[in-house]
Amino acid sequence: MTAKYVSINNNMVLAADAKVGVGDLAMHRGYGIFDYFKVVDGRPVFMDDHFNRFYNSAKEMHLDVMFTRAELKKSINELMENNNMPNSGIKLLLTGGYSEDGYKMGKPNLIILQYPLDFKEGNERETGLKLAAISHQRQLPSIKTIDYLMAVRLHPFMKENGFDDVLYHNNGTITECPRANFWIVSGSEIITAASNILRGITRSKVLGFDIDGYTVVERDFTLHDLANAQEAFITSTTQYAYPVAAIDGRMIGDGKIGPVTKRIKNMLLELINAE
Amino acid sequence: MTAKYVSINNNMVLAADAKVGVGDLAMHRGYGIFDYFKVVDGRPVFMDDHFNRFYNSAKEMHLDVMFTRAELKKSINELMENNNMPNSGIKLLLTGGYSEDGYKMGKPNLIILQYPLDFKEGNERETGLKLAAISHQRQLPSIKTIDYLMAVRLHPFMKENGFDDVLYHNNGTITECPRANFWIVSGSEIITAASNILRGITRSKVLGFDIDGYTVVERDFTLHDLANAQEAFITSTTQYAYPVAAIDGRMIGDGKIGPVTKRIKNMLLELINAE
Repeated sequence: MTAKYVSINNNMVLAADAKVGVGDLAMHRGYGIFDYFKVVDGRPVFMDDHFNRFYNSAKEMHLDVMFTRAELKKSINELMENNNMPNSGIKLLLTGGYSEDGYKMGKPNLIILQYPLDFKEGNERETGLKLAAISHQRQLPSIKTIDYLMAVRLHPFMKENGFDDVLYHNNGTITECPRANFWIVSGSEIITAASNILRGITRSKVLGFDIDGYTVVERDFTLHDLANAQEAFITSTTQYAYPVAAIDGRMIGDGKIGPVTKRIKNMLLELINAE
Repeated sequence: MTAKYVSINNNMVLAADAKVGVGDLAMHRGYGIFDYFKVVDGRPVFMDDHFNRFYNSAKEMHLDVMFTRAELKKSINELMENNNMPNSGIKLLLTGGYSEDGYKMGKPNLIILQYPLDFKEGNERETGLKLAAISHQRQLPSIKTIDYLMAVRLHPFMKENGFDDVLYHNNGTITECPRANFWIVSGSEIITAASNILRGITRSKVLGFDIDGYTVVERDFTLHDLANAQEAFITSTTQYAYPVAAIDGRMIGDGKIGPVTKRIKNMLLELINAE
């Protein structure tokens, strides 16, 4: 479900009328990029970071955003005013556009959508996510493309088998979850993968944290290293920091939210409130 | 450019009105499958083979085609009558549909498009394609998904550097071109890759050919094997058999269409005329 209004190429339209022609290259060749940020109490969170990544993804995929940051911000403000949804997520979606031959890029379509979000910050889950480890390396991992073919295909399998999400690894080297970065707490280190991943905005904030008694590092690690982890968690725009209880049925620590995860979550909330 | 009419969920609409809502999972997660066959003199070519693959791709991606083969054929016939385009290509496109959360599959959208094709069978090119070898393994290679992220991204680079198309290899083992299967003629063998590829309909026809003095085989081979090839060619629905002149600037044979490529092309044309 989306909000009442959607912006298409910086024109405000009713969600029911928000359509694109079937010739768009996103439909034909899965070609497009996006970004997604949160709005809390009417204030966009880390919007400039998301804008930086969005413009960079577009550049990497040879797509023209067509609008300046100021124009984009104006459009987002209008959307927020019209939808009146102070707690929400905003998605910027840039497609390959109408292709003359179904293959070559056309003039992109820029779609901005707002989704209601229900914050339940008080409702802290005591049990973490159950992940399934899947060997798969995403193509162009550092660019936020719309390619989620593998994850969406696996979704029914995950649900049927009682998993909450997927943890990708590349021949044993852990990379990321489809929509989140993955972390372990091992000894006095808080570690997230360094290579072949999407550099999440929340991930970058955590990498900048000073946490007493711990060093926060980006370094590749493997499935074997999970055995020595006292905590595991994911970070994402939607989830902040969220505990991981088990991978392929093997519990991490005692399977409950650990002190480091809790601390990082609180530090993220403080950072967001200070924005 | 498409024809005047497009079929959406088996309803005929004018191409200008052929739109889907921005909530479709193809737009958000690049999730969809397709197939494509030729219509020659008003007769669909190898339509049942393409139907088989289309229904199988849908099944592999957990998508429901929603219509029986008979219903699909009826819709295609109506489209052909309305568009009156006896030489054309027809694309069946099945998307992930409207997703309630932008991630889970919805009820798919089935879009059938017809494109004019200009057959220039007499205009046989004497010089073949110039390909650039790119190390990349497509995900889910045996399923005809809409994922062409890598190929479309590379397209401007190809054009700028005088290449006609890409030849994928997986750490040196040749797989396929983004939209065609790849073959070499080496000694008395006509060889195409066996693993990690899309099994093209034209490829399957060629594998069934009896060619005097040659054995047609599917077996993996490497970039090194190109040095011993006297001919190379691609096969696809659009191109039948088409000569490849050079890879990364290294000529194959004398760079012109060879006798085996010419023969296979003629055998394909005969087969199509006999349909």
